[in-house]
Amino acid sequence: MASDGFRPLNEKLLVEYIKATPSLSSKLGEESADLVIKEVGDGNLNFVYIVIGSSGSLVIKQALPYVRCIGESFPMTKERAYFEALTLKEHGRLCPGHVPEIYHFDRPMSLIAMRYLEPPHIILRKGLVAGVQYPLLAEHISDYMAKTLFYTSLLFRGTTEHKQSVAEFCGNVELCRLTEQVVFSDPYQVSHFNRWTSPYLDDDAKSVREDNVLKLEIAGLKSMFIERAQALIHGDLHTGSVMVTSNSTQVIDPEFSFMGPMGFDIGAFIGNLFLAYFSQDGHADQNNDRESYKMWILKTAEDTWNLFNAKFTKLWHENKDGSGEAYLPEVYNNSELLLQAQKKYMKDLFHDSLGFGAAKMIRRIVGIAHVEDFESIKDANKRAYCERRALEFAKMLLKERHRFHAIDEVVSAAQEVPGKSFE
Amino acid sequence: MASDGFRPLNEKLLVEYIKATPSLSSKLGEESADLVIKEVGDGNLNFVYIVIGSSGSLVIKQALPYVRCIGESFPMTKERAYFEALTLKEHGRLCPGHVPEIYHFDRPMSLIAMRYLEPPHIILRKGLVAGVQYPLLAEHISDYMAKTLFYTSLLFRGTTEHKQSVAEFCGNVELCRLTEQVVFSDPYQVSHFNRWTSPYLDDDAKSVREDNVLKLEIAGLKSMFIERAQALIHGDLHTGSVMVTSNSTQVIDPEFSFMGPMGFDIGAFIGNLFLAYFSQDGHADQNNDRESYKMWILKTAEDTWNLFNAKFTKLWHENKDGSGEAYLPEVYNNSELLLQAQKKYMKDLFHDSLGFGAAKMIRRIVGIAHVEDFESIKDANKRAYCERRALEFAKMLLKERHRFHAIDEVVSAAQEVPGKSFE
Repeated sequence: MASDGFRPLNEKLLVEYIKATPSLSSKLGEESADLVIKEVGDGNLNFVYIVIGSSGSLVIKQALPYVRCIGESFPMTKERAYFEALTLKEHGRLCPGHVPEIYHFDRPMSLIAMRYLEPPHIILRKGLVAGVQYPLLAEHISDYMAKTLFYTSLLFRGTTEHKQSVAEFCGNVELCRLTEQVVFSDPYQVSHFNRWTSPYLDDDAKSVREDNVLKLEIAGLKSMFIERAQALIHGDLHTGSVMVTSNSTQVIDPEFSFMGPMGFDIGAFIGNLFLAYFSQDGHADQNNDRESYKMWILKTAEDTWNLFNAKFTKLWHENKDGSGEAYLPEVYNNSELLLQAQKKYMKDLFHDSLGFGAAKMIRRIVGIAHVEDFESIKDANKRAYCERRALEFAKMLLKERHRFHAIDEVVSAAQEVPGKSFE
Repeated sequence: MASDGFRPLNEKLLVEYIKATPSLSSKLGEESADLVIKEVGDGNLNFVYIVIGSSGSLVIKQALPYVRCIGESFPMTKERAYFEALTLKEHGRLCPGHVPEIYHFDRPMSLIAMRYLEPPHIILRKGLVAGVQYPLLAEHISDYMAKTLFYTSLLFRGTTEHKQSVAEFCGNVELCRLTEQVVFSDPYQVSHFNRWTSPYLDDDAKSVREDNVLKLEIAGLKSMFIERAQALIHGDLHTGSVMVTSNSTQVIDPEFSFMGPMGFDIGAFIGNLFLAYFSQDGHADQNNDRESYKMWILKTAEDTWNLFNAKFTKLWHENKDGSGEAYLPEVYNNSELLLQAQKKYMKDLFHDSLGFGAAKMIRRIVGIAHVEDFESIKDANKRAYCERRALEFAKMLLKERHRFHAIDEVVSAAQEVPGKSFE
């Protein structure tokens, strides 16, 4: 064991750890010999184990002091588990229906034990690739975003609590820096981390790096990302951070969380729905042209914003006489004024969300980390066709977001991106 | 002595404190019997002593755990002295020519010893009331603002250092809350702290409280003040926080400092110059109509912004290949792009400054703390006339700031405010 109390677990050590931790062993059942342990990873950063006992189950997630998928050559603080646990608890308190319960957190071990999201829960992104519709998705995710963002903002909180959170989450700087690099910097410069479907998109990647207007817009968003402490955001709310069944939606993995701009979460989710939309032509086959599925994705993007807008505004109305610092009831003391204030706030938030969403799309096509939506399209020519349309749309959105007044206009624009076939 | 090591000093205890503190006694000279001590206060918050010894002099400033001018019924953390000392050191390091040197800081005692700004240094506001021109003022204050704001922003700093500062200065929340209340809230609601030249301005104060457009604008600025950590700002940079002679300009009292929006400092200074401008008609007499002095004030406001703009941009150019996180050299890699980025940044900063400046003017006319510029006008009718013109100008500026493209347009607007006489 290292002097800081950290010890990376394997399956054998995990069993010992569970035996020594009553809150875990009591949940799983008495017979530790019966434990079924499955290492699942989570793709990139951590070790994740599913543990099933005679009377219960749970997931153990341990952060290592480096990025798992790259190795020890890419160090990253395991303290990220602390911020993940903090946010799981806070978001779980605010929206228990869509955040898995935490059973146990061990800071020296960077270890979180939480609810096992049993089958048929799968990662939403995998469902989108498979063409599965989730009729409650927009309803659920808008609920999660409205509650977590509203209640951690100055619309609900006073300044003292706000600054406490800001100070605390300044400690998650390494993860914030990673986002800055991969979302706001690398796609716009020559970087050996970048990749794209080459040679098809060589010129497209170059044109991103040489687009002055795009670079001016991304600068504004990058500064907002670093400077603006608007709410406790998840920080990585793409479709790979959501697990779903037809009637359950669970948000996981908030290790990038900090006090940042709300639009970064909303944009991440909606932007990734648009990525899923543009990837569908690559998944169509003779049995399924995916046309109706594309419509469902777009409808879900549209509903997500509209439902979020309605729910967030409703929370604001319900709490307008509360202790939020931003709009004191004695100042914003008539309904016409409050309505105007809300319209202005939501308009700005809409444009922020479109900007961040576009940025998140661009980085998935010409940056370091790609998405299964496109990666699973085997035919590189076909994949490049889909990616190029997504990229064109995202570039337009980043530059022209202020001309959109409602989400249905954005959806229409997505449908109007040129390129009807890859023949 | 309290258990936290705090002990409020009087003159006698101060002599003992100095004797027991070698860094102070060595500065003043051996013979402590010869010390000349003068209690000067600083108006509102603290005890301030000038201490002159046989071989040197200094100022001792001690924060008390309440607001001195109100009394123990208005508690305020004496930890503000810690943030004042931090910022004096950091701003002094960045701009030693315009920040008094700190000799000693005692955190348990909330006590700062610093350079005594010897006569003829006076508070700038008093000079403005007296009608004294300071030919180097714009040059000096723009130097201070450019250096302190640029070097503590993401144009120069990396994210890690930035977040360290943000977290540290979150501790100064009580002072930030005071600003929120007196600048962004109280003037726009009924508050027993508010006052104005009554009955003359009763309707004017009421119209501020009932102006929906004004309230929408102030909401945006208030949120920016709390949420946006752009640079280490002074936080209270009005003309009472500057001491001057004809060739020296020294910025004092940064106890309200925190990581906030740059425009709050720039606006505070320029807004208070406009207050001085509008007060001049109340100081004119048969010997001096103050017309040429008014022109000097306006010229100083204009020069302050234009020189700040030039110096800040120059620092940006000089440091464009440095470690600032906001505009990486590999991304903003051509001079046309960098120029566009700078124009956009400075345009936004200009509008922020006008907005905050206007807010700082309004609060000095209908809020709790007024300024000597107007208070020293004995004739209430005359004073109300001057204040009303300042208020009308400030309201217009807050609402319409985005239509101004350069500071000379703002200066022209100030000259065009109706009301040529108070007869």
